Amino acid sequence: MSSTTPHYDALTAHLARLDHLEGATGMLHWDAACMMPKGGAGERSEQLAVLRVLAHQLATDARVADWLKGAEGEALDDRQAANLREAKRQHAHATAVPEDLVAALSRAGSDCEMTWREARAANDFKMLAPKLTKVLDLVREQAKVKSAALGVSTYDALLDPYEPGGSEARIDVLFDDLAAFLPDFTAAVIDRQASKPAPTQPAGPFSIEAQRALGLKVMATLGFDFDHGRLDISHHPFCGGTATDVRITTRYDEADFTRSLMGVIHETGHALYEMGLPRDLLGQPVAKARGMSVHESQSLLMEMQACRSRQFIEHVSPLLQASFAPTAAHADHTALAPENLYRLYTRVRRSFIRVDADEVTYPAHVILRYRLEKALLSGDLQVAELPGAWREGMLGLLGVAPDTDRDGCMQDIHWMDGSVGYFPTYTLGAMTAAQLFDAACKADADVLPGIARGDFKPLLGWLRPNVHSQGSRYSTDDLLTRATGRPLDAAVFKAHLKARYLPA
Amino acid sequence: MSSTTPHYDALTAHLARLDHLEGATGMLHWDAACMMPKGGAGERSEQLAVLRVLAHQLATDARVADWLKGAEGEALDDRQAANLREAKRQHAHATAVPEDLVAALSRAGSDCEMTWREARAANDFKMLAPKLTKVLDLVREQAKVKSAALGVSTYDALLDPYEPGGSEARIDVLFDDLAAFLPDFTAAVIDRQASKPAPTQPAGPFSIEAQRALGLKVMATLGFDFDHGRLDISHHPFCGGTATDVRITTRYDEADFTRSLMGVIHETGHALYEMGLPRDLLGQPVAKARGMSVHESQSLLMEMQACRSRQFIEHVSPLLQASFAPTAAHADHTALAPENLYRLYTRVRRSFIRVDADEVTYPAHVILRYRLEKALLSGDLQVAELPGAWREGMLGLLGVAPDTDRDGCMQDIHWMDGSVGYFPTYTLGAMTAAQLFDAACKADADVLPGIARGDFKPLLGWLRPNVHSQGSRYSTDDLLTRATGRPLDAAVFKAHLKARYLPA
Repeated sequence: MSSTTPHYDALTAHLARLDHLEGATGMLHWDAACMMPKGGAGERSEQLAVLRVLAHQLATDARVADWLKGAEGEALDDRQAANLREAKRQHAHATAVPEDLVAALSRAGSDCEMTWREARAANDFKMLAPKLTKVLDLVREQAKVKSAALGVSTYDALLDPYEPGGSEARIDVLFDDLAAFLPDFTAAVIDRQASKPAPTQPAGPFSIEAQRALGLKVMATLGFDFDHGRLDISHHPFCGGTATDVRITTRYDEADFTRSLMGVIHETGHALYEMGLPRDLLGQPVAKARGMSVHESQSLLMEMQACRSRQFIEHVSPLLQASFAPTAAHADHTALAPENLYRLYTRVRRSFIRVDADEVTYPAHVILRYRLEKALLSGDLQVAELPGAWREGMLGLLGVAPDTDRDGCMQDIHWMDGSVGYFPTYTLGAMTAAQLFDAACKADADVLPGIARGDFKPLLGWLRPNVHSQGSRYSTDDLLTRATGRPLDAAVFKAHLKARYLPA
Repeated sequence: MSSTTPHYDALTAHLARLDHLEGATGMLHWDAACMMPKGGAGERSEQLAVLRVLAHQLATDARVADWLKGAEGEALDDRQAANLREAKRQHAHATAVPEDLVAALSRAGSDCEMTWREARAANDFKMLAPKLTKVLDLVREQAKVKSAALGVSTYDALLDPYEPGGSEARIDVLFDDLAAFLPDFTAAVIDRQASKPAPTQPAGPFSIEAQRALGLKVMATLGFDFDHGRLDISHHPFCGGTATDVRITTRYDEADFTRSLMGVIHETGHALYEMGLPRDLLGQPVAKARGMSVHESQSLLMEMQACRSRQFIEHVSPLLQASFAPTAAHADHTALAPENLYRLYTRVRRSFIRVDADEVTYPAHVILRYRLEKALLSGDLQVAELPGAWREGMLGLLGVAPDTDRDGCMQDIHWMDGSVGYFPTYTLGAMTAAQLFDAACKADADVLPGIARGDFKPLLGWLRPNVHSQGSRYSTDDLLTRATGRPLDAAVFKAHLKARYLPA
């Protein structure tokens, strides 16, 4: 029996090969971060370069355009049609940018990143400026050709790979709303917390073995499937691998278990999304995660919504007391008691460094970067003006500004290698997390009681059908509308912050 | 300035890409054996299949034949000429076998291997026979086309990928020599050992942590470079990875440290070879290990020649006593004293299982398989006759025969997936190890005293220039002649066995 969808079939077989190749690449990245001895770095970068070229050849194979076109006329069901739509989007990105520009951007990015490491250490923005200027010039070129190919604005063209269908018009509205709300709110929260005694930092040492055992236990509680994933150590925590073999990482500090624990929970949120993607179309574009903001929503839903709740803190407190022996500094376990832990995990402080920021101040860091990268792209802001604009923005949004560029506009790697359009997904993810968690709690009254007893099945039982198993079948807006009744807005996020940080 | 060797340059750039792709594949195999959760197996085999196809496409790319031909007329130095020779050999193997036969053999091999696992467990050779017959039929076809392409006998064509330039004519002579020597010798050794008290098996438990620490310490002593490699756990120990990132594995038995320790030493021997390959041409055929017998010679040189010597046992005994606390069964460390350890590590016993065999009886297992696989290939032996021929051969060569096919002709995986021609390299490697070690000791009188004091620099100082750094520049015969004054013969191996097992 011959297929009635020969073009679609040929396309999906080809895309599966591409996906396996990308899966192999992902594993080699994981290995480089977690396992590889340092002397393997040279050969590894050659391996990755060869795989990147082969993947690019597959993605831009001339037959793909024919198959995409041919499949248009074939009788596809809804999911197949969604898959075709996503395949087209992928193909448009892969073919939009001329190869010499891709290569130039890759070289300039590597070069800038190397200089950045040195310049940041030396707190020398002038050393960085020419390299960053070069990268941004090429990013602007890339944005122009992608804009023409996709028919969207230059910024939206850069945003699309991270946030499919996203637009600065939408993000401006959402972020302006938050930017108007957050400064006064943050001040009120900090005032309120200052009026109470500061929480006690639990005193270590906390052995790595005990921290790892605790992390594995909490991962199991959240629903991590160890037949399809593992936990390791890397300098920068991440969630990698493939949907059937998810590799998450953390790093341990013997003096402080609290960050690694929340880090593991965060990456487990990412992992659960990957593990819940539709298995029957695995490797096809429609079976992939919807985008970075939805992905981040899954990590932040676990970390911020579920596991900084009083319910989870009540659950985890005895676990912590069982995991760690009392120390000389804390002869009893008062620092691990629920009330202290909750205050620790919900403490709000103005700080210069994004990755150290708490739930309340984090959006200010992101909104600043979002506004600045748009201005850099449009040319409204010159690279030489960046340090000043950074300090001004920090003062306006957060009320503090760093003394040094090292703690200012040189703290993040993203722009150095040309990643413009990524930053907003962090805060879009935080807002999406709030809206999804709220809907889950409303749909199943047992979600929060479940968390309190260490049972995440009610929560996962809502996330699986409403988010994970949908993959990329719908647009982000449609996904959220189907799951929560409306597209993303700032209301639930703001309500969540008020309820947690300024309860009546 | 344009190159005077444009074809050679294009060829080597292409071969480097192929090598990086194969390096990536090797890492994914290592990961599958050491790290991958079981649920990742399906996706991993898809990843490996895609990489295999891409590597095959690169290896058989039509341009390669043109470059090989064009490079013939270019002015190459000696190493480049050797590289070209090896590239031609690789290309001949890659292009000799039609793709449908490669695919059929791969499918039949997987199928046979699956059935073999079941049949071996059930001790049911009849279940296995039709699958093995199918594999051997295809192997025979493969041998025929390779024989025609390479201009050598069918067996030699199968041998060549493992033992480049090897021939059954040479191996027959070497193995017949050993087969005539070993039965009486083995009997004499066993008689002599029976006349003395049996060595004491050290009583555990020996913690995995302590065994691992010991293994790492011994690896460092032998010269393993941890900036370019690591030690992990896998069910079947192996040496994998790439020359600048060598991954060796072991498995631990808490009741017995002795096998893991020698296993780690064995794999370290392989690793040192890889680590010593010429770095300036890395990734080119001429910079690869010379073949499986030379590779095995490096592992066996470390395991059998260097580390079962009285000198090494004297060195390692205090290390073992420091590694493991005395146990209830052995209140003191008498079982770890040098004399007992030496007798343990040189004990000779007739057994059915190749992988458990000692240095003296191992060749009998290999000679049996070598003779049988030649007879199976030629058709002189039918699959149905294999169990009987096995028992008969075991009785003739070793004087014992297993009661079951599970402990007989079904114990090894090699033939199941079509690997014919591999077995002889184990014993060729053992003989080569003896000849090389003897030459090293003669060239530098400090080799054995160095081993006694835990200093492997004298030994490595000879192996590096004479073996490792030569890569595949010379044929195996030439390599050995340059290093030891003559091609391989059985004399030194026999002399070694006599000196160690029947000292005057």
